[in-house]
Amino acid sequence: MQNFNWCNPTRVLFGKGSVKDLAEYLKADNIKSVLLIYGGKSVFKCGAYTQVTDMLNELGISFPELNDIKPNPRIDKVRDGIARVKLSKIDALMPIGGGSVFDTAKAISAGAFYNGDVWDIYQHKAKINKTVPIYGVVTASATASEVNAISVISNPEANIKTSFSDPHLYPKIAAVDPEFQFTLSEKQTVYGGVDIIAHALERLLDGDEGSEFMDDQGYALVRNMLRIIPELIDDPKNYDARAEYAWASQLAHNGILSCGRATRGDFSSHRLGHSISLLFDVAHGASLSVVMPAWARYLYKFNPVPFARLGENVFDIFDGSDEEKALATIEALEDFYRDINAPTTLRELNIKEDEIQQLADNASKSGALPFGTLKKLNQNDVLEIYKLAY
Amino acid sequence: MQNFNWCNPTRVLFGKGSVKDLAEYLKADNIKSVLLIYGGKSVFKCGAYTQVTDMLNELGISFPELNDIKPNPRIDKVRDGIARVKLSKIDALMPIGGGSVFDTAKAISAGAFYNGDVWDIYQHKAKINKTVPIYGVVTASATASEVNAISVISNPEANIKTSFSDPHLYPKIAAVDPEFQFTLSEKQTVYGGVDIIAHALERLLDGDEGSEFMDDQGYALVRNMLRIIPELIDDPKNYDARAEYAWASQLAHNGILSCGRATRGDFSSHRLGHSISLLFDVAHGASLSVVMPAWARYLYKFNPVPFARLGENVFDIFDGSDEEKALATIEALEDFYRDINAPTTLRELNIKEDEIQQLADNASKSGALPFGTLKKLNQNDVLEIYKLAY
Repeated sequence: MQNFNWCNPTRVLFGKGSVKDLAEYLKADNIKSVLLIYGGKSVFKCGAYTQVTDMLNELGISFPELNDIKPNPRIDKVRDGIARVKLSKIDALMPIGGGSVFDTAKAISAGAFYNGDVWDIYQHKAKINKTVPIYGVVTASATASEVNAISVISNPEANIKTSFSDPHLYPKIAAVDPEFQFTLSEKQTVYGGVDIIAHALERLLDGDEGSEFMDDQGYALVRNMLRIIPELIDDPKNYDARAEYAWASQLAHNGILSCGRATRGDFSSHRLGHSISLLFDVAHGASLSVVMPAWARYLYKFNPVPFARLGENVFDIFDGSDEEKALATIEALEDFYRDINAPTTLRELNIKEDEIQQLADNASKSGALPFGTLKKLNQNDVLEIYKLAY
Repeated sequence: MQNFNWCNPTRVLFGKGSVKDLAEYLKADNIKSVLLIYGGKSVFKCGAYTQVTDMLNELGISFPELNDIKPNPRIDKVRDGIARVKLSKIDALMPIGGGSVFDTAKAISAGAFYNGDVWDIYQHKAKINKTVPIYGVVTASATASEVNAISVISNPEANIKTSFSDPHLYPKIAAVDPEFQFTLSEKQTVYGGVDIIAHALERLLDGDEGSEFMDDQGYALVRNMLRIIPELIDDPKNYDARAEYAWASQLAHNGILSCGRATRGDFSSHRLGHSISLLFDVAHGASLSVVMPAWARYLYKFNPVPFARLGENVFDIFDGSDEEKALATIEALEDFYRDINAPTTLRELNIKEDEIQQLADNASKSGALPFGTLKKLNQNDVLEIYKLAY
């Protein structure tokens, strides 16, 4: 078990009606104006917008708005938000949404007190010392952006989707009312679920021996997600399943699953997925259900052990050698993705064979090569994995 | 799944040499003097005292000492510590030890800015608004006092051992170097382990349906402790087992296992155990291995379900009705305690049959009756459970 430094300062207000509980903290912190940040119709449809603005009105808090945040959120919207914060008196940011909206809020928070262009921060050319506090409301669980210090932003001009992490970026409070997620589409639920599972797998399959105790926590999380996602496909308004899904998403990526591991997770699949999302506007979860099995098929013979343990603990695969178990595990994961109608090939995403090189080139330039921890991937590995994903 | 409000602000510096990592935080927070709080010889034997005082000397931090804190720590020592803090300029408290030392530090922290007697706070007659920050070093894991907001203190004059909890009591930083625990006796390791298991069971057996996902996290914790304790009996210097034990102790009682439950845990067994510890100076863990199976035998027919689920998920008990599984589970838990040489009867603690009434009287007066959540216990229930424990 490796050394670690663990502190997650975000307060989670979890459950039915939790937006109301935000009020006492906003009052205590003397917040007078917030920049409300959201995507589109979904915040109206699910009821979050009304609940939040009713609360803000009651407290006499002003709330200029920045909306139309898209999935795979972009740096131009971040720049807009920073300009808004610099021009007017904004005490706090209030994202209402899922990962894209929170990632945008964190980027605005990071750039608001920086004098250059915020993209410098994502290029690791500038440090953050001061941020605007974030009090957020979750309407789509998956990335756990509301309880971690990570922000993933796309820069279409540079053709880069990249992530940045800094302890200053932890939101102060995240209110999670699982009822807001009753109106998510089946696709959103499935892709979010794929992402949650991926966050656990990036740790469990990182090649570090970690600890049996923490691995078991990760296996329990994945096993439960295999149950919860189909429950929600059957009944999108199943409160307990929505709540377990939301809470599992946080425990999968609030950092706790990295405690005791030599790595912070492998995250090659995330890197490879980011290029698919960026170039072909594919949902993050859909990129992962395609690329993670291909990554696994490419690598498992190199080190079958973590795949075999995953199979034993999650898919009840006990027969054969570790290599045989590993392959059966990857097949079981693909079968699960197919069962929940998540894509498992680039073809299903309408990506053509002659576009694979473009993906490989993009993934290779979005950050330093080699990347990954189970096996360090170079440019050729990246290309071969995309080919397998085809 | 029930609503909850989750935030654990304590920073954990975990692993080999983690005392050194405290330095940067003490510097950043401009700490110039700490009250060093510890028990006796063990902090010298394990090397923690030397490492801590070397670091403090290097930083030029003064460190008056309050030592000789005993297991089942007492209010008089707390009063001594408060007097010390009130008389001299103390910026922070630095407990070095296990639960008793941290509980004492928290009590001093709570009382330092209160003008009356600190026992008022434990009697819920006074509120805390301001505390002295705690930067602690763990040398014996079990209670997780270093990462929670609970303090358990005994008042021998009033013949009461009771706990108090307040968000102000979270330590600011807890450094955990598992190597300090290489020198713990087998008894300490076993009793600590019994306590860790009990913290998970107090939730899993609280009668609330909770959530399958969180129950699985609890089961994984218990299952791993059943492996880790014997590993440490075999080899007290097994670093990975010490580390898993230390980290499991924190996850068992840092509050996360209560998330989504209607109760904060049943904790009848803890209440019943406190009277045994108080009146007969019994180690906390030893009181729990005696009282928890008796509590379970007294209650399981009333609601066998949580016991049966525990048996399936932890002890591989699959045959029979829920009631039969429940009984087999309790027997398996007792067998485990016997295997690790933890007592399972009051007789083994040299408590006589005619002293049982005294225990029941004490447990009934140490807090409001009825207590417990799986089944609310009244005075007669308490007596019957102690009789079963005999």
